[in-house]
Amino acid sequence: MAVIYDRVALIGLGLIAGSMSLAMRRDGLATEVVGYARSAETRATAREIALVDRVCDTLAEAVKGADLVVLAVPVGAMEAVAAEMAPFLKPGATVSDVGSVKGAVIATVGPHIPEGVNFIPAHPLAGTEHSGPRSGFAELFENRWTILIPSGAKPDEVAKLRALWEGMGANVDEMDADHHDLVLAVTSHTPHLIAYTMVGVADDLRRVTDSEVIKYSAAGFRDFTRIAASDPTMWRDVFLNNKDATLEILGRFTEELFALQRAIRTGDGDHLHAYFTRTRAIRRGIIEAGQDTAAPNFGRVAEKKT
Amino acid sequence: MAVIYDRVALIGLGLIAGSMSLAMRRDGLATEVVGYARSAETRATAREIALVDRVCDTLAEAVKGADLVVLAVPVGAMEAVAAEMAPFLKPGATVSDVGSVKGAVIATVGPHIPEGVNFIPAHPLAGTEHSGPRSGFAELFENRWTILIPSGAKPDEVAKLRALWEGMGANVDEMDADHHDLVLAVTSHTPHLIAYTMVGVADDLRRVTDSEVIKYSAAGFRDFTRIAASDPTMWRDVFLNNKDATLEILGRFTEELFALQRAIRTGDGDHLHAYFTRTRAIRRGIIEAGQDTAAPNFGRVAEKKT
Repeated sequence: MAVIYDRVALIGLGLIAGSMSLAMRRDGLATEVVGYARSAETRATAREIALVDRVCDTLAEAVKGADLVVLAVPVGAMEAVAAEMAPFLKPGATVSDVGSVKGAVIATVGPHIPEGVNFIPAHPLAGTEHSGPRSGFAELFENRWTILIPSGAKPDEVAKLRALWEGMGANVDEMDADHHDLVLAVTSHTPHLIAYTMVGVADDLRRVTDSEVIKYSAAGFRDFTRIAASDPTMWRDVFLNNKDATLEILGRFTEELFALQRAIRTGDGDHLHAYFTRTRAIRRGIIEAGQDTAAPNFGRVAEKKT
Repeated sequence: MAVIYDRVALIGLGLIAGSMSLAMRRDGLATEVVGYARSAETRATAREIALVDRVCDTLAEAVKGADLVVLAVPVGAMEAVAAEMAPFLKPGATVSDVGSVKGAVIATVGPHIPEGVNFIPAHPLAGTEHSGPRSGFAELFENRWTILIPSGAKPDEVAKLRALWEGMGANVDEMDADHHDLVLAVTSHTPHLIAYTMVGVADDLRRVTDSEVIKYSAAGFRDFTRIAASDPTMWRDVFLNNKDATLEILGRFTEELFALQRAIRTGDGDHLHAYFTRTRAIRRGIIEAGQDTAAPNFGRVAEKKT
């Protein structure tokens, strides 16, 4: 593929930035990929495994001369990074990010973007329960969606960023920040909060029932633990920064949960059966849309003894 | 392996019974496996794919002469089946089941078991989101736990049933019914109810946001949809029959959820971070216990483009 950006600077070197670097270098989408992380240990690991072409020891060094700067740090850290790097940005460069919330990023990072620099927030809907510089892989974005928030940037520059994400294998959509934050509250933020809660409840009980919760987890619970093993700092920032939409969806969730709880208490089997039948259709939709496998148990490779 | 039971009768021919038949026949654990299902369509399918050695057209025919009879129908249907089959049971035979709740099964099936017949309830903690006679596979129970409730049966007969499950690849534990029902309320029943609820909420919202919930499901939600695609009749019966334990765990769940919701509302990032850190350890425990894969996203095979 053709080079899309001459120099790309990745700020933060975790799962997403690492996967971006590996994907861009695999396909030659950038002439040079440089990276910076605040932690010296992360920078040392990134050097050791050659995660990017060049690891920089300062934020200023990383962004100087970069045509695209991608903020890949927790949402709560973005404002400080943006303020610090602003004086070193190249005129005409594009700043983007990969944060899971978009309204708060626009509100906090936006004001620090200098005149003449493009700001195009982005969110790749991809990830795993692993984090850190060793967790990335080039295929992470393949067949996953990345959402761009054009927010008034030049159409040419939006098209360029879109081409980069498409080059990394993603499907790209554009929408406004508020809509993004509501959709993600449903498809990601609230499910994560609920999974964290269920695992927390089980952890309390585990102290009573010893190791039984772990031993018998295959009956459903283990799927929750995968989600609840995600990076705590990232998720703290998601909830603090998508407060309104998350609280709204949580309100709907508890309302429906109480209705089902009441049906259990009163023995209303018809209500339960109708509810459980309706939700099967969504699963079929997701499989037809190519967003998951139809294989039982996700086709877990460890399911069968070898 | 040696034959453990001469004739085994499977009542109900869904995911669990089908997998048992395939596993028993693969390893020669029974001389003959016969099966019965109330639905003529299910019986026809079972015959077509030779799911068991012999499909019987009546319940009486299936249980006559059987050394082991396994009830593999929804918990709510077990009492009627037990009452109907009781007169045809062979003296000295063992009756077992595979229901997800055990207290209610003992209370409803137990009284119908004739003098001289052993009753040893069981619960294999294995399954997938698929159901029906075509969904079984011989490896379903490998490295999964099966819980036996000895409930006063002869130790020799309990040992025999244990040997059968071990022969099918399962690890076997014994415990009393109340304890089983509490542990399962945590590891399975409440997680399922929560997943159903979250998918239901998303379904409501999907009508507003068109197909976006499906399109963007990879961000966490799709794992819930797998759980919420399980058999509605089975799950209705689980909740109606494990009411007390499920309501107790649900109470704890909403209590903790409200505490997290309050932390979001008040911006208490420390509380959120501490909670999200604690839950990571449980995931590690599950992987170390060999109950799930450490591969990202469960090692979903469809994750990569081919």
